[in-house]
Amino acid sequence: MYKHILFATDLTEDTEYLLEKVRAMRNLTNAKLSLVHVVEPLPGYSYAYLGIEDIEGQLLTEARQSIEKFGDKLGIDKSNVFVEIGPTKTKILKVAEDTGTDLIICGSHGRHGLSLLLGSTANAILHGAKCDVLTVRLPEGA
Amino acid sequence: MYKHILFATDLTEDTEYLLEKVRAMRNLTNAKLSLVHVVEPLPGYSYAYLGIEDIEGQLLTEARQSIEKFGDKLGIDKSNVFVEIGPTKTKILKVAEDTGTDLIICGSHGRHGLSLLLGSTANAILHGAKCDVLTVRLPEGA
Repeated sequence: MYKHILFATDLTEDTEYLLEKVRAMRNLTNAKLSLVHVVEPLPGYSYAYLGIEDIEGQLLTEARQSIEKFGDKLGIDKSNVFVEIGPTKTKILKVAEDTGTDLIICGSHGRHGLSLLLGSTANAILHGAKCDVLTVRLPEGA
Repeated sequence: MYKHILFATDLTEDTEYLLEKVRAMRNLTNAKLSLVHVVEPLPGYSYAYLGIEDIEGQLLTEARQSIEKFGDKLGIDKSNVFVEIGPTKTKILKVAEDTGTDLIICGSHGRHGLSLLLGSTANAILHGAKCDVLTVRLPEGA
């Protein structure tokens, strides 16, 4: 049914819950699996006055370390793990197209709290995607 | 992975494309399958001056005939085919909860043309659902 699944993760703890769903869907479909996380760019001024240099570089490095742990748990080769910097929606959809993804999986909190962020990402993906999207409802309190 | 799938259909021709996806997902998961279509209520004035009586009743009857055809194609018992009248989002989510649905499948056109309607329904379902939602991207021009 699906040949290439792209799991868009925000690298929060909820990811553990999502990993189970992603694993189950991969097992059902025997699809290839890739992972993507997007670091949103910071406003265009320098943090050097705080003594922090290249904060985006640090964020990218940390994101790559985190996502590779998830990749290991899913047995995914590093070449199929993507960390991008830019607007979340645009970057996820670009990775989806570049990799020939036919199903994007992402989490959604509904409308409270952090959900405003996650919900809007899920929503943006849903509206822009050229492929199917599975939105996994995260448990309350997660 | 899923025990009960609810296919929310708008009963357009696209449904044929969606039926294939729904069938594939049911086969993969061995889930129970239900169907729902919602007729939006008409504005609260009478069409009697046009010689049309009980137009909502007619819409419901026609919707039930159409959806039962889809139900037959999927081998679904009539007791698992729902036609409701009311706000689309509320009614779909209520049927989902009443039936213990853990995956809602719906179509999405993206953002052009008819999509404004379909997109907003998919969107509303996505934000209100207490279960996972699979949004199937309909082919361009469908």
